Amino acid sequence: MTDDDDDNDDDNDEEDGKPETMKETPEPNQTEIIQGPQGFVAGGMAAGLKASGALDFAAILCDRPAVTAAVTTTNLFCSAPVQLCRERTAAAPRLRGVVVNAGIANACTGSQGLKDAIAMARAAEEAAGAAEGDFLVASTGVIGRLLPMDVIKQATPHLFSRLSPEGWDDFSRAIMTTDTVPKVSRRTVRIGRGLRRGAVVTVLGVCKGSGMIHPNMATMLSFIVTDYPLGPAQARQMLRRVADRSFNSLTVDGDTSTSDTLILMTSGAALDRREVDAGKDEQFETALGEVAAELTQKIARDGEGATKLITIEVEGTASDAAARQIAKAVANSPLVKTAVFGNDPNWGRICCAAGYAGVAFDVNAFSLKLQGKTVMRNGLPARFDRDALKEALKKKDVRIQIRVGSGKGRAEVWTCDLTYDYIKINADYTT
Amino acid sequence: MTDDDDDNDDDNDEEDGKPETMKETPEPNQTEIIQGPQGFVAGGMAAGLKASGALDFAAILCDRPAVTAAVTTTNLFCSAPVQLCRERTAAAPRLRGVVVNAGIANACTGSQGLKDAIAMARAAEEAAGAAEGDFLVASTGVIGRLLPMDVIKQATPHLFSRLSPEGWDDFSRAIMTTDTVPKVSRRTVRIGRGLRRGAVVTVLGVCKGSGMIHPNMATMLSFIVTDYPLGPAQARQMLRRVADRSFNSLTVDGDTSTSDTLILMTSGAALDRREVDAGKDEQFETALGEVAAELTQKIARDGEGATKLITIEVEGTASDAAARQIAKAVANSPLVKTAVFGNDPNWGRICCAAGYAGVAFDVNAFSLKLQGKTVMRNGLPARFDRDALKEALKKKDVRIQIRVGSGKGRAEVWTCDLTYDYIKINADYTT
Repeated sequence: MTDDDDDNDDDNDEEDGKPETMKETPEPNQTEIIQGPQGFVAGGMAAGLKASGALDFAAILCDRPAVTAAVTTTNLFCSAPVQLCRERTAAAPRLRGVVVNAGIANACTGSQGLKDAIAMARAAEEAAGAAEGDFLVASTGVIGRLLPMDVIKQATPHLFSRLSPEGWDDFSRAIMTTDTVPKVSRRTVRIGRGLRRGAVVTVLGVCKGSGMIHPNMATMLSFIVTDYPLGPAQARQMLRRVADRSFNSLTVDGDTSTSDTLILMTSGAALDRREVDAGKDEQFETALGEVAAELTQKIARDGEGATKLITIEVEGTASDAAARQIAKAVANSPLVKTAVFGNDPNWGRICCAAGYAGVAFDVNAFSLKLQGKTVMRNGLPARFDRDALKEALKKKDVRIQIRVGSGKGRAEVWTCDLTYDYIKINADYTT
Repeated sequence: MTDDDDDNDDDNDEEDGKPETMKETPEPNQTEIIQGPQGFVAGGMAAGLKASGALDFAAILCDRPAVTAAVTTTNLFCSAPVQLCRERTAAAPRLRGVVVNAGIANACTGSQGLKDAIAMARAAEEAAGAAEGDFLVASTGVIGRLLPMDVIKQATPHLFSRLSPEGWDDFSRAIMTTDTVPKVSRRTVRIGRGLRRGAVVTVLGVCKGSGMIHPNMATMLSFIVTDYPLGPAQARQMLRRVADRSFNSLTVDGDTSTSDTLILMTSGAALDRREVDAGKDEQFETALGEVAAELTQKIARDGEGATKLITIEVEGTASDAAARQIAKAVANSPLVKTAVFGNDPNWGRICCAAGYAGVAFDVNAFSLKLQGKTVMRNGLPARFDRDALKEALKKKDVRIQIRVGSGKGRAEVWTCDLTYDYIKINADYTT
């Protein structure tokens, strides 16, 4: 954050060391084909798990053992699929695919739930001709209900017979619950530069989630596939870093679900692992980070009842973690979120939320900008044009910038506004 | 509660060591006189700080130096009155009174704000004939605006001329902001038992607060006065214990205000300090705790847009603090609060919130009751009559009971439901 009030949007010119990224995230529609990375097929079908008859059963399959890493919920009540996911990625970092259902979360289902998750994976492994233990499972939907395993088992061969390189749109729709739009983000990056320009690598991310979602359900599922070659430990570490700056920097209502899962799979088909180096890894991680951040923002925009994406930037703390803690306190404040909904330049609520975040700072070094306008400087109210700021707050994108000192720590966190429709979606639902 | 030392059997109106408490909390109305403890006068007037012309300026005065203790906000952005309150109660534990205004919080007002708070106290000290430093100040209202000191100074002598033992109703109304009702709780207790029946002690509590309240404002102010004699250290420790089990166990929207203040003053006029003992102190602390808990529940019921009081009980943890942490996670979950608003027996959201509270427990020992009905037992869904439970959830009082193991820790936390009106109050306000 600088002291002048200018927006400084970077243009997309390639700078030194910056990967040549071609942003290609088409708004999904029925006719456009989403191009996945080499080595993968995907698809979705209606198996009858959703009462609506919509697509509800989906899979991703790699044509070879794919290096796979996962980040899962920290909730003690993790679902059976999450337990299986943890076990299998720890035991064998090279897997063949994931099978996913929407409608039933298979959470709070005890030992039978775990048996069912294993059986669901087994059916996929058989249909794919893969070995036992080669598949992960992800489920999203109602908590406390068992999966109809006969339906799952019967549908699995049909699902796998229709997987194709063009199946990503169906996949993205089949994993939706209260999402109002499918969420896809894609980057192609030319890795390496100079005379030997290297290879074109694709990163494709698909996710679902819109707040704590459907009643009795609470899930953010995200799948990222690529053809850039990564080692198992490298994939794990990179995914953790990227998750911290994307999905873990999102808060819709502060509720951490029982099933949150982020899976990264890479076929490594785009170039030989022996050709990569630290520079290429860095280029790839940037692209991976962009895909993850874009998916995260799509979830925030599709938050239950949300009308605005709110970005909270905090800087000047001793550490990035401290900055994130302050940003999350602001992002989780219902009073801040309702003020943004009401286009109210209510800076008092923002500094109040920062003040109870549990991070020590000097309030006399606290400065705050709303939509680029300084409203508080060094702990004291600044003069600003209230009507102009109210007008600026009507935009779909609201930016809150906080500086609390001169430390090097910084963080960016996303959330959405809190609206009548959030209450409607979450209170009027009849179980 | 056990009682081994009750050597007087002649008294039948007293049971098993329980203090003889006469609950006397009338619903406030214009005609009823609220009887305060011996030694205190109070009152309120309209000084013109509220645009509505309602009562907005109030004071409490003790006829002798009163032992005074305070618990104040942990927010880094504490208001000037909170700073003064901390300094003065630390420097001198015996004070004469408090002067309070509503309309302007005197927060985020820098050094001028602190000067104004001191001047506001000084005006009260002069009007009361008290020494410099003998008064505390409390302010609630808009953040970032200076007090109109000319108005304050001019009104102070008028305010003090009308203080009286019958002035508590005016006092309770003058400190209100978005509160829909004044909040008063009162107990009279006969301290001591047997032949020498001891004295009748009065505990009177008055507070304001309804969530993070008015936009740009964020305040719970609570004043408890009594005539039971306490030493300064004892008053401080007792108030801290009582606050933890009452005001600190309340959460309306998770926002900790910049001005939260709880003040306890005692004249000690009801009995001689040399007559008290540990048993009497305990009797008194029970009454004090009841007053604080009742005020807390009144705030929760008057939460912005609230239709229900939600009580969350957690037991079976290793410590009370761990139980409180779980209970607060549930109380702060917007999904739990909207489900209660919608009469939805949505137990999945409750166990989910408990699961991310940050307290380790065995999910297979987790049991949950809603309105007394078991909905989850040892980590698995229990059978229950969903329609009957939906009906039971329509009551104004909703009880959530959680057991997470066999530890001795327990806690009770209060909150309210999250409704359309919360959004309306907090978003539609125009600054």
